[in-house]
Amino acid sequence: MGPATKTVTLEGRFPMHRAGHLDSPTLAYETWGELNEAHDNAILIFSGLSPSAHAASSAEDPSAGWWEDMIGPGLPLDSDLYHVICVNSLGSCFGSTGPASINAATGEMYRLTFPVLTLEDVAEAAYRVVHKLGIKKLHTVIGCSMGGMSGLAFCVRHPEAARNFISISSATRALPFSIAFRSLQREVIRCDPKWKNGDYDPDDPPLMGQRLARKLGMISYRSPTEWDQRFGRQRTTATEENVNDPFKIAFSVEAYLDNHANKFSGGFDPNCYLYLSRASDLFDLAEHGGSLKSGFKRMDLERALVIGVETDLLFPIQQQQDLADGLAEVCDDTKLVRLDCIRGHDSFLVDMDAFRPVVCEFFESCCT
Amino acid sequence: MGPATKTVTLEGRFPMHRAGHLDSPTLAYETWGELNEAHDNAILIFSGLSPSAHAASSAEDPSAGWWEDMIGPGLPLDSDLYHVICVNSLGSCFGSTGPASINAATGEMYRLTFPVLTLEDVAEAAYRVVHKLGIKKLHTVIGCSMGGMSGLAFCVRHPEAARNFISISSATRALPFSIAFRSLQREVIRCDPKWKNGDYDPDDPPLMGQRLARKLGMISYRSPTEWDQRFGRQRTTATEENVNDPFKIAFSVEAYLDNHANKFSGGFDPNCYLYLSRASDLFDLAEHGGSLKSGFKRMDLERALVIGVETDLLFPIQQQQDLADGLAEVCDDTKLVRLDCIRGHDSFLVDMDAFRPVVCEFFESCCT
Repeated sequence: MGPATKTVTLEGRFPMHRAGHLDSPTLAYETWGELNEAHDNAILIFSGLSPSAHAASSAEDPSAGWWEDMIGPGLPLDSDLYHVICVNSLGSCFGSTGPASINAATGEMYRLTFPVLTLEDVAEAAYRVVHKLGIKKLHTVIGCSMGGMSGLAFCVRHPEAARNFISISSATRALPFSIAFRSLQREVIRCDPKWKNGDYDPDDPPLMGQRLARKLGMISYRSPTEWDQRFGRQRTTATEENVNDPFKIAFSVEAYLDNHANKFSGGFDPNCYLYLSRASDLFDLAEHGGSLKSGFKRMDLERALVIGVETDLLFPIQQQQDLADGLAEVCDDTKLVRLDCIRGHDSFLVDMDAFRPVVCEFFESCCT
Repeated sequence: MGPATKTVTLEGRFPMHRAGHLDSPTLAYETWGELNEAHDNAILIFSGLSPSAHAASSAEDPSAGWWEDMIGPGLPLDSDLYHVICVNSLGSCFGSTGPASINAATGEMYRLTFPVLTLEDVAEAAYRVVHKLGIKKLHTVIGCSMGGMSGLAFCVRHPEAARNFISISSATRALPFSIAFRSLQREVIRCDPKWKNGDYDPDDPPLMGQRLARKLGMISYRSPTEWDQRFGRQRTTATEENVNDPFKIAFSVEAYLDNHANKFSGGFDPNCYLYLSRASDLFDLAEHGGSLKSGFKRMDLERALVIGVETDLLFPIQQQQDLADGLAEVCDDTKLVRLDCIRGHDSFLVDMDAFRPVVCEFFESCCT
């Protein structure tokens, strides 16, 4: 948790969507900009699976956030105009209660005794935080990737609590190709002998499994087109010395995956990862009322914006179209923007030049 | 090795394409139909990475082969007209010499002392087999998947030895997305503690890593479209009992992957898999003369047919177009057939109804 991160405790019993409950969970969050007197200029961001609440830098924490170029004075989420809030997902490990937190009832880490996590729980916890901050109705809920599904859960469960919704590279539910990727990511972690059925030594976590899961993730987060242009069949400089070792890294794309795996895997608790990953599979808007249509009908939005990327393998463009079509049935002012980025699902994190104008235009055209 | 599989020993020193050599390697093969007096009715099949030489049943071995519906009397590869040969790739483990074979010089399994394997070696070994069988010029070389690249290597190195070439769901070289998949498949095997840097106990192989590699393979072999139609978000019957276990199999697509992993992983030697997988990454037609163009120029084909599948993730349709374009530069009678199958790369194994007419038409229109 960075110096700008605040926490709030949701006192009392927090019932979980599927089964079980948590006692007084803590939620970590960060904010940018001031809440106005009318309390109607708040924007809530739901992140993807792995980021913390530190979406952007601030005076208290000048380190770059995961959406640095999107939030700040004069940026699309303009902190001169809006009070921007990012909550670390329930179940994560950056200040919010999750499987890596201590269960007060036992004095031990929850680990696999943590109840089944759903994105409805992630949404509900964020709702409680927002409520505690004195905000009855958000100007806009924005969700990226998994966060888009958390945002849908928020809007379905608390239609009175958000005026507008922006979904970025997300969907109403995961399709089997994405479930397969995530299922296998979980399995490589669980297969690491150091995982020990969740009882890993925090000083010696299942890094090997986490590295493999990250590499697999990168295959699903980027796109073949990007890699063709970026790497082609380029070799690493180590090729010559490895010429007689048939398995060491030889191609640039292999070195790239290795670098990404090294960067990521130490920073995320493996059990938290497993819970959030499964939550992404489990979410289905259609469970809210029995069909997608009935799920959409529970929302009450003034405006909706769906942004998708043509090369996204994890939340493919057809799902963006379907989501926009569903929203349009219940919200006349729904817009779909299909971006031609080549960096796949990750584009919203790395192709900011493509996303900023679209988000900017949404807020500029809002009657604030 | 099945009862119909024969072997031939290539006596003497067999130099490997990159470095090193093998002493008198053995090659396993099967045949269907009779070689005619002119010795001009032989068809050579190069398989994908994992199959044996048992491509189809016969009187000696009535068990179904991996291309059962393609080879036989009255079938597209008509054994009443042609002498069909399928050679188990050098480096494989179904009768041909590979990393799991005993090195006569040491009395031990080669394991990682096996020299770097390339598809040029696979092609060269098959060429020697064909030569030993008294065939100077093949009617047609057919290669599926990895075998298509082996077939290209054959036609480049021995342009005099084949009149026609059929490539099925293959390419001139692997792109980084495919390399990433295969690299990660190899890594999950190498990360299995039972792999022991290749010195695994044959009675206790790295099955966990092999299962994970197979699941990863299946993600690349099939297509999102197929899985949407076939599984959607369907749950397994075990869902209820697993409701409180967040990681056990819950979706049908997970059960499907698990079944495939169980079927495959016991049957293939892990070191052989690693060698053949890397050979698939290494192959590049452009290495033959310095460019793709010069590679193609080394061929001398009367007819070429390229069959590709629109939903193939591993050898995408653009690569089929590129291969056909390259062949057309040096062979006027080149045809590309793009099939609309939804089962991705595996279509040539499972969507036989789509492939049979195309292969059939090729042979029917041949001046035999």
